[in-house]
Amino acid sequence: VTPRPAHAVILAGGRGTRFWPLSRRRRPKQLLDLTADGPLLAATVARIEPAVPRERQWIITGADLTEGVVDALPAFPRDHIIGEPIGRNTAAAVGLAAAVLQEQDGDVPFAVLPSDHLIAPALTFCSALERALEIAGHTDLLLTFGIAPTRPETGYGYIEAGPELANAAPARTVVAFAEKPDRATAQRYLSGGRHLWNSGMFVWRAGVVLAGLRQHLPQAVEPLVGVARAGAPGTARFEAALKTAYGDLPSISIDYALMERAANVAVLPAAFEWNDVGHWIAMRDLWPRDSAGNAARGRVLALDSGGCIVYGPDRLTALVGIKDLIVVHTPDVTLVCSADRAQDVRRLIEELERSGDDRYL
Amino acid sequence: VTPRPAHAVILAGGRGTRFWPLSRRRRPKQLLDLTADGPLLAATVARIEPAVPRERQWIITGADLTEGVVDALPAFPRDHIIGEPIGRNTAAAVGLAAAVLQEQDGDVPFAVLPSDHLIAPALTFCSALERALEIAGHTDLLLTFGIAPTRPETGYGYIEAGPELANAAPARTVVAFAEKPDRATAQRYLSGGRHLWNSGMFVWRAGVVLAGLRQHLPQAVEPLVGVARAGAPGTARFEAALKTAYGDLPSISIDYALMERAANVAVLPAAFEWNDVGHWIAMRDLWPRDSAGNAARGRVLALDSGGCIVYGPDRLTALVGIKDLIVVHTPDVTLVCSADRAQDVRRLIEELERSGDDRYL
Repeated sequence: VTPRPAHAVILAGGRGTRFWPLSRRRRPKQLLDLTADGPLLAATVARIEPAVPRERQWIITGADLTEGVVDALPAFPRDHIIGEPIGRNTAAAVGLAAAVLQEQDGDVPFAVLPSDHLIAPALTFCSALERALEIAGHTDLLLTFGIAPTRPETGYGYIEAGPELANAAPARTVVAFAEKPDRATAQRYLSGGRHLWNSGMFVWRAGVVLAGLRQHLPQAVEPLVGVARAGAPGTARFEAALKTAYGDLPSISIDYALMERAANVAVLPAAFEWNDVGHWIAMRDLWPRDSAGNAARGRVLALDSGGCIVYGPDRLTALVGIKDLIVVHTPDVTLVCSADRAQDVRRLIEELERSGDDRYL
Repeated sequence: VTPRPAHAVILAGGRGTRFWPLSRRRRPKQLLDLTADGPLLAATVARIEPAVPRERQWIITGADLTEGVVDALPAFPRDHIIGEPIGRNTAAAVGLAAAVLQEQDGDVPFAVLPSDHLIAPALTFCSALERALEIAGHTDLLLTFGIAPTRPETGYGYIEAGPELANAAPARTVVAFAEKPDRATAQRYLSGGRHLWNSGMFVWRAGVVLAGLRQHLPQAVEPLVGVARAGAPGTARFEAALKTAYGDLPSISIDYALMERAANVAVLPAAFEWNDVGHWIAMRDLWPRDSAGNAARGRVLALDSGGCIVYGPDRLTALVGIKDLIVVHTPDVTLVCSADRAQDVRRLIEELERSGDDRYL
């Protein structure tokens, strides 16, 4: 049988709090134009179009973000944008996508992709995606893309890859998933050559995911299948069913709920460059740099200053005697953050939430 | 004889480049509202009014700044604002003032005051000013206010004070003027108890200043007397004469030209608090401080950050893991400067001038 054309589901529900003050509740990271190439979400949609055309792409986002998503992608089919009434982590979003696709198009292969990563070259990625969708079409594998580590990163989960699967090359067996490691362990993973970064990009068939969730997260499956059967996305009946069912779903990641528990997982080593744009430090590699290593969007006048990351497209940012700082200017907030504290930007948001001051959130 | 009522001449010609990016060519330090009490110049005018009413106050500023001065002081007598066609340092400005006063009102006592210092309490200062003007009325002294040092400051000139003058108490003889000292010398001055900071505030009579300049800077006196005789300030003849004469005057400070050369100098130890607001660091003592020692105009959210000086009245400034930085936000420029480099802010201006980019000057 000829496999049915594949779909792609883009997860666009996160907040990206580490990009505050540029990211806000209504303008999270995936809607930011961090690299002057348009919003990350729009770049994701465009990147995969050679492999999966727009009419078979889906976006799952927060209900409060759908307006922003439509603004960022005016030509995207409106009934393929699903707004979650409340965030319930990735297992719920993936389960919903699988149930909708199964209902709308049968047991089709589909990819699940974060909306806020940068991947290049696009065509290399599309080739990998097509091969993965092909494998998913003729096996019952739960495939994940693994990225060969280039540094002893402690902020990602790792996948230990085993031998190549004969009927699914270049996919490999998964020996184990490993939590975010400490520095020494990360260094060992890096030198060992068997560990890959867990990219959060998955490829599988709708029926395979539903079967896996039925086994490992059964309480989520029937409600989601019920939503998918209530009506097509975009209809009032679908929306109403979604609103009723979603809040009661368990909030758990698809990694914990399914990938780390299932036996039929496999990993595809990536041949493309991948950057998860995790926090401001990522911009060091993405923005133009001066000879002192200051990376900037916007004009910088640096006097005895180096290693800084500066966002201020509408202004001059002047630095005197400054090393390794993040400086971000927005119309109502200026952030100055030590580069080694980039992870702690989210703590400012917690602080603002505690103080009950919503103005800057 | 009853001495004639005294005048006050406020020197408002500087640029205050160390307060960039808030200070600009057309909005120098003396026109800035650094402390939320109005422009420093307006505060200076108001402070001395109990001692010298506004109708006997004069402001000498740059011709390109007179509009800004009028904006800052709409009620100030327009014909008492003299715009220098070009900056020629303080000897020229003081000589011009002395020549004008001599021509308009005879050999009157007058004070010369910078426009951009902070002094408190105002009434203590007014008492000191009145006493100084009284002494100047009945002696031929060139009086300067000296400030008792509170730290081993290397950025000021010092005056070594001698014994009190019997007919002019509390004025003291001047043993010597000392240039900006190195750290060890400054420490010695501080512990010795005989040295005072040279405040740049002078009190004397018009005729005494003119006589002193005639002796020590003769080439400046006749041109300035000529300007004063051409017409009253504000008349077209005065303006024309000023424009013709001013550019040829020597550019030298009144300290070098007169005070350090004349025999009839005396120093008045100040009983008031004085802050020359030399650069951003001065704001540490003038703005509200949080428990971590961050001084700010505008809201600050500080996470593990201390000793910072933040200007951003229209915004939230968020700091993460930051120590001892100056952060200044203006509509088109953000400055981030290490606190120990506050003096080097002016080097940014030199850099902008070199690049020929006037936009931020």
